[in-house]
Amino acid sequence: MTEEILREKIAAAVCEVKRTNPLAPSVTNTVTMNFVANAQLAVGGSAAMVFLPDEGEMLAKTCGAVYLNVGTLLPVLKETHVKTAKAAHEAGKVCVLDPVGIGIGSMRTEILTALKESKPKIIRGNASEIISLHRLWLEKSFSSTARGVDTTESVEEAELAANELALYTGGAVSVSGKVDYVTDGTHALTLAGGSELMTRITGSGCSLGGAMAVYACVSEPFVAAVTGAIVFKLAGNRASQKADAPASFQTSFLDELYKATSGDIAAYPFELCTL
Amino acid sequence: MTEEILREKIAAAVCEVKRTNPLAPSVTNTVTMNFVANAQLAVGGSAAMVFLPDEGEMLAKTCGAVYLNVGTLLPVLKETHVKTAKAAHEAGKVCVLDPVGIGIGSMRTEILTALKESKPKIIRGNASEIISLHRLWLEKSFSSTARGVDTTESVEEAELAANELALYTGGAVSVSGKVDYVTDGTHALTLAGGSELMTRITGSGCSLGGAMAVYACVSEPFVAAVTGAIVFKLAGNRASQKADAPASFQTSFLDELYKATSGDIAAYPFELCTL
Amino acid sequence: MTEEILREKIAAAVCEVKRTNPLAPSVTNTVTMNFVANAQLAVGGSAAMVFLPDEGEMLAKTCGAVYLNVGTLLPVLKETHVKTAKAAHEAGKVCVLDPVGIGIGSMRTEILTALKESKPKIIRGNASEIISLHRLWLEKSFSSTARGVDTTESVEEAELAANELALYTGGAVSVSGKVDYVTDGTHALTLAGGSELMTRITGSGCSLGGAMAVYACVSEPFVAAVTGAIVFKLAGNRASQKADAPASFQTSFLDELYKATSGDIAAYPFELCTL
Repeated sequence: MTEEILREKIAAAVCEVKRTNPLAPSVTNTVTMNFVANAQLAVGGSAAMVFLPDEGEMLAKTCGAVYLNVGTLLPVLKETHVKTAKAAHEAGKVCVLDPVGIGIGSMRTEILTALKESKPKIIRGNASEIISLHRLWLEKSFSSTARGVDTTESVEEAELAANELALYTGGAVSVSGKVDYVTDGTHALTLAGGSELMTRITGSGCSLGGAMAVYACVSEPFVAAVTGAIVFKLAGNRASQKADAPASFQTSFLDELYKATSGDIAAYPFELCTL
Repeated sequence: MTEEILREKIAAAVCEVKRTNPLAPSVTNTVTMNFVANAQLAVGGSAAMVFLPDEGEMLAKTCGAVYLNVGTLLPVLKETHVKTAKAAHEAGKVCVLDPVGIGIGSMRTEILTALKESKPKIIRGNASEIISLHRLWLEKSFSSTARGVDTTESVEEAELAANELALYTGGAVSVSGKVDYVTDGTHALTLAGGSELMTRITGSGCSLGGAMAVYACVSEPFVAAVTGAIVFKLAGNRASQKADAPASFQTSFLDELYKATSGDIAAYPFELCTL
Repeated sequence: MTEEILREKIAAAVCEVKRTNPLAPSVTNTVTMNFVANAQLAVGGSAAMVFLPDEGEMLAKTCGAVYLNVGTLLPVLKETHVKTAKAAHEAGKVCVLDPVGIGIGSMRTEILTALKESKPKIIRGNASEIISLHRLWLEKSFSSTARGVDTTESVEEAELAANELALYTGGAVSVSGKVDYVTDGTHALTLAGGSELMTRITGSGCSLGGAMAVYACVSEPFVAAVTGAIVFKLAGNRASQKADAPASFQTSFLDELYKATSGDIAAYPFELCTL
C-alpha cells in the first residue's frame, strides 16, 4: 500500500460511515460507555452496548465490527467477551480489542488469554497495555507494567510489541499516546497532535477504540485504525484551540469529531513507512 | 378530554413537579443512566437507579412512578424488571416501559413477554420498538424490525400499533421520531420540532422516558407522556438555535429542559384528535 | 492542629496530588462513575473503577486510598465492598465510604453493617445518610430517613452523628449540604458557598467522595476531606458565575476543579473549631 492509496481509503471510509451509519456494538466498561457511544455517533456510526453472552454473539454475527473493552468486569462478562470474539472471528468480522487495565485481577487475565485464539483484527491500547498483551500472548512470562488504567512506558517502547502482535493477528495494532503509532506489521505510521487535556478526561482511549470499530464496518483493519486515530488527533487539535480545561475540552472534542470532514481527515500529516 | 383541558393539565403537571421534586426511580441501562438522571433532575424531579429485585420492588411501592428500560441487561435484571413492574401495577403506580433493543437476545424477549401482564401505563419507544412490542404482545408471531437500538420504520407506520397497545394497557403510548406521536387509544396528537442532532447523541429516548416517569408522579399517564414529549421537543428546538454539533447541543438541551416554563410547555403547538 | 497548620496541609495536599497524579480506585455506582472519574482526573489524580472482589482487594493494597460508594448494587458487589474495605483497613489505607441510598434494599444494609468493622477513615454523605449510618452503627435501632438518594434533614441536624462517627472510626466525617460540615471528632469546620445548581446535577456528592480519596492518597483523612470539600465549594462558586443552568454548570464546574490552585483552595474562608 502506498501513502496515496491509504489516504484515498481513509477518505472513502469516512464518507462511507457518514453515508451508511453502520452499527458497531460494544461489550465495554460502564465508566466510559456513554462517551464511547457518543463518539461512535459523532463520527457517523451507531452504537449498542450489551453484557449478555447471546447478545454479544448475535450482534457480532450480524454487524460489521464489534468493540471489546475489558474494563469494569462483571462475572457474566467472561463468557460474553470470549463468545463475542469467537463469533466475530468465525464470521470474518473485525473485533477491536482494548486490553484496558491488563494485570488487574484474575478474570481479566483469563479473558485476555482466551481472546488470543480469536485474533482480534484491531488492538488498541496505551504503551503499557500493548507491551503487557505482547508478553501475555507471545512471550513465556506475563507481567503487567500498567498502573491501573495508565501507562508507565512510552509509545516508542511499545512499537516492537505492536508490530509482533499485528503479525500474529494479521490485523492492525494502535498504540495511543502523545504520538500515536499504528501498524499492520508490515507498514507503520506515527501521528502527532491531539492535546494534553485528553489525559485529563476519562475514556479518550475507549472512545477511540469504539470509533475504530465504526470505521472497521466499512474498511480493512489498518485503514480503520488509522482513520480513527487521525480523527481523534484532529478533533483534539481543534478542541484545544477552543477550550483550556477538561470538561469544555471534551464537549468541543465530541463536536469536532462530528464536524471533521473526509478531506480534513485524509489530509492529516503522516508518513507511511514500510517495516 | 378537550385540548384546552389537556393544556391546563400539562401546565399543572410541570408546576407540580417543580414544586414537589418527585422521585421517579429507574431500572435502566448503564449507557445512558447518567443522562436519564440529569434529565429527570433538570425538569424538577429526583432520580434513583437500582439493579436489585427487592430495591426495585420497594421503590415501586413507595414512589409515584418508575422507569423501566431493558437496555444493557444483566442476569439479575430479569427478576428486577418483572418484580418492579408487578409491584408498580399492584400498587396502582405508573410504570414507564422503554422496550429498547427489542429482539436482541433471549432475556430481553422473556422480560418483555413477562411485562405484558403488568400493563405498563406508559410505553415509549421508536417506531420499530413499538411495532415489535405490538407483535410480541398482541399478535401471534414475534419478530423485531429494530436495528440494534435504532428504528427502521417511520412513526406513521407505528401509529396503529401504538393505539392498540394503549387500548390494551389502558394507558398511554408514545412513539418518538422526527414527529412524535402520543396516544391513549382514544385520543392522539403529534408533535413536530426537536432537532436532527438528537439522533447524534445517545439516550435522548431513554431520558425522555425518565422525564415522563417524573411527570407521571403527579399526573395521569397520557398527560405525563405528552408533557415529557413536549418539553423534549421544546428544549430540542431551543438547543438547536445555540449549538451546531452533538455535545454542545446536549449541554444546551439539558439547560433548556431546566429553563422551560409551564407556560412555554403548555402552549406548544399540537392539535388533539379523537380516534 | 491550628487553622494555620491546616491551611498549610491543604496547600501541600493539592500540590502533591498535582505533582504525583495518585491513583484512587473506586467501587462505585454506574450512574455517576464517569463524573467521579473525571472529577478525580480534574483535581490531578488518576481513576480506576472495579466491580470484582479480587480487583478491589488488589487495588486497595497497592493504592493510596479507595472510594466505596454503595449505589446501584449488583450481586457481586457485596463481596467486593466488604473485601476491599477490609484490605484497605489491614493495609492502613484510607477508605472513603459514601453510604448513598442507605435504607434501600437488604443488601445495602448488609454491606454497610459489615463495613463498620473496617472503620473507613473518611465518611461522606448528605445529612440523612450520616444520621442513618450513625443509627446503624452506633445506636440500637436502624431506620433511614433518606428519600431515595436525597436528604430530608439539614446538615446541622447531622453534626452530632458526624462527630460520633468520626470518634468511632478515628478518621473524618463530612456532611454535604448548603453548608458543609467536616469533623475528625475533635476539630470541626463549616464551609459555605457552592451553588444551588449542584442539587440539579446527579453525582456531585459521589464525585466529591472520589476527590477526597485522591487527596487521601497524600494526606491524613481530615485534611483530605476538608481539601475535597473546599475545592468543590470553590469550583461551585466559580461555575455559578458562568452558568445559569445545570449542564453548562457541570461543564464549568469540572473546568474549575481543574483550574483551582493550591493557593485558592488553602485560602478558602472557614474557621476551625475545637469540639
